[in-house]
Amino acid sequence: MNEFELVKKYFSRLSKSNTSSLNLNDDVFFDKSKSIVVSIDTYVEGTHFIDFRKPELVIKKIIRSSISDLICKGVDPKYYFISGSGNSKSFSSSNLSKISKSLSQEQNKYKIHLSGGDTVYSNKLSFTITSVGFSKKIILRNKAKFNDDIYVTGNLGDSFIGLNILKKKIKVNNFLSTYFVKRYYQPILFPKLTKKLLDFANTSIDVSDGLVSDLEKLINKQKLSYKLYMKKVPISKNLQKLIFLKKLKKEYCVTQGDDYQILFTASPSKSRIIHKTAKSLSIKISKIGKISTSILKSEIFNQNGEKIALKKQGYYHKF
Amino acid sequence: MNEFELVKKYFSRLSKSNTSSLNLNDDVFFDKSKSIVVSIDTYVEGTHFIDFRKPELVIKKIIRSSISDLICKGVDPKYYFISGSGNSKSFSSSNLSKISKSLSQEQNKYKIHLSGGDTVYSNKLSFTITSVGFSKKIILRNKAKFNDDIYVTGNLGDSFIGLNILKKKIKVNNFLSTYFVKRYYQPILFPKLTKKLLDFANTSIDVSDGLVSDLEKLINKQKLSYKLYMKKVPISKNLQKLIFLKKLKKEYCVTQGDDYQILFTASPSKSRIIHKTAKSLSIKISKIGKISTSILKSEIFNQNGEKIALKKQGYYHKF
Repeated sequence: MNEFELVKKYFSRLSKSNTSSLNLNDDVFFDKSKSIVVSIDTYVEGTHFIDFRKPELVIKKIIRSSISDLICKGVDPKYYFISGSGNSKSFSSSNLSKISKSLSQEQNKYKIHLSGGDTVYSNKLSFTITSVGFSKKIILRNKAKFNDDIYVTGNLGDSFIGLNILKKKIKVNNFLSTYFVKRYYQPILFPKLTKKLLDFANTSIDVSDGLVSDLEKLINKQKLSYKLYMKKVPISKNLQKLIFLKKLKKEYCVTQGDDYQILFTASPSKSRIIHKTAKSLSIKISKIGKISTSILKSEIFNQNGEKIALKKQGYYHKF
Repeated sequence: MNEFELVKKYFSRLSKSNTSSLNLNDDVFFDKSKSIVVSIDTYVEGTHFIDFRKPELVIKKIIRSSISDLICKGVDPKYYFISGSGNSKSFSSSNLSKISKSLSQEQNKYKIHLSGGDTVYSNKLSFTITSVGFSKKIILRNKAKFNDDIYVTGNLGDSFIGLNILKKKIKVNNFLSTYFVKRYYQPILFPKLTKKLLDFANTSIDVSDGLVSDLEKLINKQKLSYKLYMKKVPISKNLQKLIFLKKLKKEYCVTQGDDYQILFTASPSKSRIIHKTAKSLSIKISKIGKISTSILKSEIFNQNGEKIALKKQGYYHKF
């Protein structure tokens, strides 16, 4: 049973009386009466980050992953809390000093503030990050409309390549290695887009588990299907080069997650304003598919326009 | 270096620009402008709870420990979030069902609602609980006044005995075993007292690390000292009996923490209202000491009125 089904089965009834909790079917908690939005995620060494040899980079990755949950919903993150479990090696003075410096840089970049947290002893390293923002309105899941266009920001797949370089499963030259590893540790978020999203997105999610997996989560409670065109999925020039050199499958590279790009749907009538917003903020926003009726099955088309079935649909935490 | 010093050294500068964060020198975060109060704590198996053989009890303990941070500040907890890291054994269907049932009982008891959380895979079991409440006013640390009386709610020491029974370090009959183990897993909180505290407490903390340790944390930034009378420290009849039977030291038993009782100071002029409140709510509130000037050293007096020095001042997470 995967994480999503687990939560659903055992815990959704506990939050039912609390109408503001979105019935645990979203990545964030929203209490409309207090205009508060909260995201909480736990990151475990070996599962969510490969090791702690670069604490300053791991911290950037998990902070961005956490605030990404708010940003993709149209909510500016305001504070964050960090709880670390680890041993004396993980939390050595040298590491703490690196973590602190790194947090300071992220604070300046994203205008967020450390508001608390604790450190506890454990032989297994993990962090829980809580991000809090305030907003009267947020973009929810499961609000896609029939005939909506499907969009994604930035590029997908770079982070997955970075991870595989770190795991020594892919060998590339120094230049490419630096590029991809940077994208793994420091995904590019678009805080400037946050509030604008409210103008056009019907529903949204950030791509953390994987493009297809997250698209399915986005509309999981709706009687809808989708058409997804791999040819339209945006990738970086460097990934384009690598796919050619290493004979990789694009549809595989772009569906492995950890991208932290914003996946959203919008009415075709919003096409113009989305184009304008993208241009004025210099943010790449690509139309990659279409929402369809539930009479049809969801379809994915590869680079050559052929219908394909993906074997591994992104990433669930298996128990 | 202990947890408190660590946080202070490396992270306090990160929260300085954020005046609402109490500079990380409190157990809760308070944003006055939003009237929001947040407490986050991580509980690791082997450190904060001994094992997971009774998941339904461990869950009660950690939920109470978390909301206790809010209750002792005069804030009613409203929602909570739970993030669990563990393996398939810890999160088996049977355990999840027990956890869910237990959470449901706690929700009814304390009028709180599950608002989110996640489960991730880890070979080390831990939980991070986030509790959120709303209040325009909270009782802060370091607001004791010279000549304040020091009070504590309920009884101290039972939880520590319960822990030692579970660890098989103390052997008692079934009746006593059930009693003390229950107090270890299910500390008695006083939610009815929460809002009343605002009427008389100058400063407060919950006793989690240990009576003396928490008293020192309570006034750590103030130029004050204290006098603490062990004779006045409230204990249960069962603990009184056990101390007699096993020739235990009361001052040791009541300073080991995990009690989740409220330790607060109040002006002597509030003595009457405190007495009245205690009586009307049927809550034991005991005067156990006095706040004094920093010219004097803090003093602890044992059962016979003799000045003593405690060797182990409660519980810090060592790194």
